[in-house]
Amino acid sequence: MSRKIRVVQYGIGAIGCAVTRVLTRKGEMEIVGAIDLRNVGRDLGDIAKTGKELGVVISDDADAVLRDNRPDVVIHTTSSSLKKVYPELQKAIKAGVNVVSSTEELSYPYMKQPELAVLIDKMAKDNQVTILGTGVNPGFLMDAWPLFMTGVCAEVKEIRITRIQDASLRRIPFQKKIGAGKTVQEFNEFVKAGTLRHVGLYESITMIAAGLGWELDDITETTEPIIYETEVESQYISVKPGQVAGVKQTGYGWNDGNVLITLNFEASIGAKESYDAVYITGEPSMEVTIKGGVNGDIATSAILVNSIARVINSPKGLITMKDLVISALQSKQSE
Amino acid sequence: MSRKIRVVQYGIGAIGCAVTRVLTRKGEMEIVGAIDLRNVGRDLGDIAKTGKELGVVISDDADAVLRDNRPDVVIHTTSSSLKKVYPELQKAIKAGVNVVSSTEELSYPYMKQPELAVLIDKMAKDNQVTILGTGVNPGFLMDAWPLFMTGVCAEVKEIRITRIQDASLRRIPFQKKIGAGKTVQEFNEFVKAGTLRHVGLYESITMIAAGLGWELDDITETTEPIIYETEVESQYISVKPGQVAGVKQTGYGWNDGNVLITLNFEASIGAKESYDAVYITGEPSMEVTIKGGVNGDIATSAILVNSIARVINSPKGLITMKDLVISALQSKQSE
Repeated sequence: MSRKIRVVQYGIGAIGCAVTRVLTRKGEMEIVGAIDLRNVGRDLGDIAKTGKELGVVISDDADAVLRDNRPDVVIHTTSSSLKKVYPELQKAIKAGVNVVSSTEELSYPYMKQPELAVLIDKMAKDNQVTILGTGVNPGFLMDAWPLFMTGVCAEVKEIRITRIQDASLRRIPFQKKIGAGKTVQEFNEFVKAGTLRHVGLYESITMIAAGLGWELDDITETTEPIIYETEVESQYISVKPGQVAGVKQTGYGWNDGNVLITLNFEASIGAKESYDAVYITGEPSMEVTIKGGVNGDIATSAILVNSIARVINSPKGLITMKDLVISALQSKQSE
Repeated sequence: MSRKIRVVQYGIGAIGCAVTRVLTRKGEMEIVGAIDLRNVGRDLGDIAKTGKELGVVISDDADAVLRDNRPDVVIHTTSSSLKKVYPELQKAIKAGVNVVSSTEELSYPYMKQPELAVLIDKMAKDNQVTILGTGVNPGFLMDAWPLFMTGVCAEVKEIRITRIQDASLRRIPFQKKIGAGKTVQEFNEFVKAGTLRHVGLYESITMIAAGLGWELDDITETTEPIIYETEVESQYISVKPGQVAGVKQTGYGWNDGNVLITLNFEASIGAKESYDAVYITGEPSMEVTIKGGVNGDIATSAILVNSIARVINSPKGLITMKDLVISALQSKQSE
């Protein structure tokens, strides 16, 4: 390898810290800067608990970090909302730096935020960089992975993805995010307020449809509490019978009254087993299972880092995970 | 979609015919020519049993077909041996046409046939085309699929892939290829002569190693007969107890006395269950299973067709499936 890939990290929260720990194990990568509003002046290695100082000081001056360190790529891990992170992405792109971002709404932004998607694509092309939104979900388990599996299908008629998670193994913000320990009333208020939800089902459904050349005429989502009859607990939270142990969220992609895509996401403290599964109805049909499921925190940091080489070598502009897999694209429905 | 992708098929055997049947279902593709030494003058639709004539006449004049039909891509399905098909690939490349080929030895040719790999890559770049070798195996199940799954791993220490096939569901040339119905002596003679083997383990092992940044110092293979104590049969062949029902072939990738990669391929008439599985030891470890396994004939024709769009949009030159997935590339071992 000629020279190391120079990486700036933008966002040093839980995922950012996990990214740091992955990056320091990669011989071909070098962290040359870190941006966050918290822990300014502290060494990135201390904050990310890598076991040693890295000589990289966290700064809140994004422009200076991007300008002074000549990075090849920014790993961006600050927020789920594309609107919220847009100014941050803009800074990186205008500095001429490729971006890999964990922002869920960037994973497939063309349907929900078409104006921002066009703006980002144009800006990236103008500045000769590539930008990708990825992560374990959205970005892999409920979109890229099933699309990849369809690569050996001559035809796909329907696709169903299930992710069942035992949340007691995840970090506490995740356990709180899924509503563990709340009353049903609190849960329903949170659902109404839009704060309790896994961000990404809509993005994954639209990405799958695009990857298969399917036209959808409706996308619907339901969110329900998961309640058990016995007490369940994690290291952090104890859930009494009748209290909410987690969330069951289901997304459907419709065409002409038929469900073509179903994404079912369940995360609860006390889930009997964790697994991820893809069910393809087609030629051939397929049932693919990941026993125990994929741990989301490790996986998201890993795929952010593993995507770097592909992003640097991809065509300029905004790309999505759909563009990086071979899928069973079929134009029959739109003929 | 602006205009249809123009496809020439080079090789109209069993896989070529399956490719034809897939292509005729894809609205965005158009078959504009067919090349084979057999069935010259016959309509491709008749030979491939598509249910109707396609208006494409099989020709043995490859140069004329490639020149006169201005194809965007050739789907090449003639032989496993790269040396044997090299003149055919050369015709397509020199005609300025992209190539997707089922030639097993093309799937990762850099170790066994480095001179040919360099020649093909240069020729493709000179003629501004892209060439890819793919298929279900090699090309997907024992290389691209496991590599793709490592995309969510922060580290990979060992990888093991198992493909168990009930051969009674496959076409008869496949059943004969795996030695079904032979005596042990005949089987061993065939193994010695090199005619009885699944081509691709070596290619898959070297592709995985490259995709993960691993250096191997040895690659070994074993081939054994599978023998059952009771009579087993398919639609075509009956296998008496003590006769060979199929083959068990195992490939190992070694580094410093340790096995890092194990590919285990078993195909027999009378296998109890069919499945494909990937076992990754790493962070996280993963066990991924395809229940019932993937039907090889459908899958190979499907992935050849599904690869077309990616090949047309990829950088020019010789590419491999490794270049089309995000994997857990790690340079630690070579530091």
